[in-house]
Amino acid sequence: MTTQPFETLAEHRCFGGVQGFYRHQSHATGTPMKFGVFTPPGAKKAPTLYYLAGLTCTEETFAIKAGAQALAAELGLALVTCDTTPRDLGLPGETDSWDFGAGAGFYLDATQAPWAGPYAMESYVLKDLRAVVQANFPVDPQSEGLFGHSMGGHGALTLGVKNPGIFSSLSAFSPISAPTRCPWGHKAFTGYLGPDQKTWANYDASLLIENLSGASSRPALLVDQGLADKFLGPQLHPHLLEEACQKSGYPLTLRRHDGYDHGYFFIASFVADHLRHHAKALKG
Amino acid sequence: MTTQPFETLAEHRCFGGVQGFYRHQSHATGTPMKFGVFTPPGAKKAPTLYYLAGLTCTEETFAIKAGAQALAAELGLALVTCDTTPRDLGLPGETDSWDFGAGAGFYLDATQAPWAGPYAMESYVLKDLRAVVQANFPVDPQSEGLFGHSMGGHGALTLGVKNPGIFSSLSAFSPISAPTRCPWGHKAFTGYLGPDQKTWANYDASLLIENLSGASSRPALLVDQGLADKFLGPQLHPHLLEEACQKSGYPLTLRRHDGYDHGYFFIASFVADHLRHHAKALKG
Repeated sequence: MTTQPFETLAEHRCFGGVQGFYRHQSHATGTPMKFGVFTPPGAKKAPTLYYLAGLTCTEETFAIKAGAQALAAELGLALVTCDTTPRDLGLPGETDSWDFGAGAGFYLDATQAPWAGPYAMESYVLKDLRAVVQANFPVDPQSEGLFGHSMGGHGALTLGVKNPGIFSSLSAFSPISAPTRCPWGHKAFTGYLGPDQKTWANYDASLLIENLSGASSRPALLVDQGLADKFLGPQLHPHLLEEACQKSGYPLTLRRHDGYDHGYFFIASFVADHLRHHAKALKG
Repeated sequence: MTTQPFETLAEHRCFGGVQGFYRHQSHATGTPMKFGVFTPPGAKKAPTLYYLAGLTCTEETFAIKAGAQALAAELGLALVTCDTTPRDLGLPGETDSWDFGAGAGFYLDATQAPWAGPYAMESYVLKDLRAVVQANFPVDPQSEGLFGHSMGGHGALTLGVKNPGIFSSLSAFSPISAPTRCPWGHKAFTGYLGPDQKTWANYDASLLIENLSGASSRPALLVDQGLADKFLGPQLHPHLLEEACQKSGYPLTLRRHDGYDHGYFFIASFVADHLRHHAKALKG
């Protein structure tokens, strides 16, 4: 394994472990990228949960708001977060929208100018982020799970479904389940991938799952969705994910929760179930 | 009880209860004030924990960062937070410093211009905040505890020690324990109370406690302090609180924690102990 240099921005003792924030140079994006790691107490080869955040979020959001470290410390899980795009590149339109450009990378490798190149979050997560974590933290590279929220739920589902050899467990909060069929996805995919919708299917979890062979032998997928989520109707479409899983036999537990919205008070309320779901798969 | 009007800014379902953020008009400050309430599931007359935040914080900080709602829901405790001062008053110097003026009210009633009047956080917490919560939320007005962090730890200790008829339980994280003997306190008290240091003693927890009669019959005080806290040496002086408690017989459990700093990752790590400490006193 090659050296993976990184810089420590801050480290905080937390539930007997360490919540740290770091920066490294990404080959995939060609830019510096920030990430966060919670290292549980006494870790030697900790199973690792990668968390992908939603629109506008950073590597800090989940670490600060989800309250996941308490149980992660108890279960011996490492938690890794990353930023949602490179920042401050000076690209035209980079910060014009909250749902496109900076903070809205959609965990894909863009093919359209000016995004192609630095907006390569799929490759970043799969290669560089895992490499820097595996090389520098007391984690088990053979025991990795993936989850995320909203845009990051989309990221978790697509990267997870396409890489079963990497991620042994998978879950999502309020994912954008069928981005080829919602406004957020149309805007992002048009901008990053271009108008040819054939190229979009590779980044739509429901389309990926409905045609997946061997879906029934995949690890169980846990998805939580709040029913007071204002994005549920127009953007998230969990029923399309449900239909896709039924079609291919993908094992899905989709839980709909009365009264919960799209934010981190919802995530915090159910994050313990997700950690236990992953720990069961990763720790056997 | 008079009507206590308030406005709902946001409500989020959280661990089966509701984390809300609200605004009302304060008589004490003569201004609008924001506050937060976590109402546990099924509450009818919930014991209530008032939390006072530190420098620069708002009514949102603890609610977002401390991860306290999970256990508060389980124990049936309401959690109340408030802003640390009125905001946007246009007073000269109001936002020049992070440790004086807006966000830095020190939970006292200022006597010096231009702060006297709106900067009346002691009266605000004791009267208006409790009144609006008691009148509008399913809480038990006879069962109230108080805690806080840093400047808010100072606030909790001083208001709690002076009002044993109101607050039946008390704790603090990293409190400014002897503000008459540290730079933060000197700056604040000079600005809010004037140069006559005789008026300062009423807002110094260690001075209040060391001369307290009947201290040994007070409810036990729990204080947690991180030993990697950069403010420990210059500002916090927990040893002076310890000496004062020894002198008067005030029951204190002061825990010093290796490696923990001043922030919310520290608070989150030990907040469960504080909630149990209060629940034991409030629920009997």
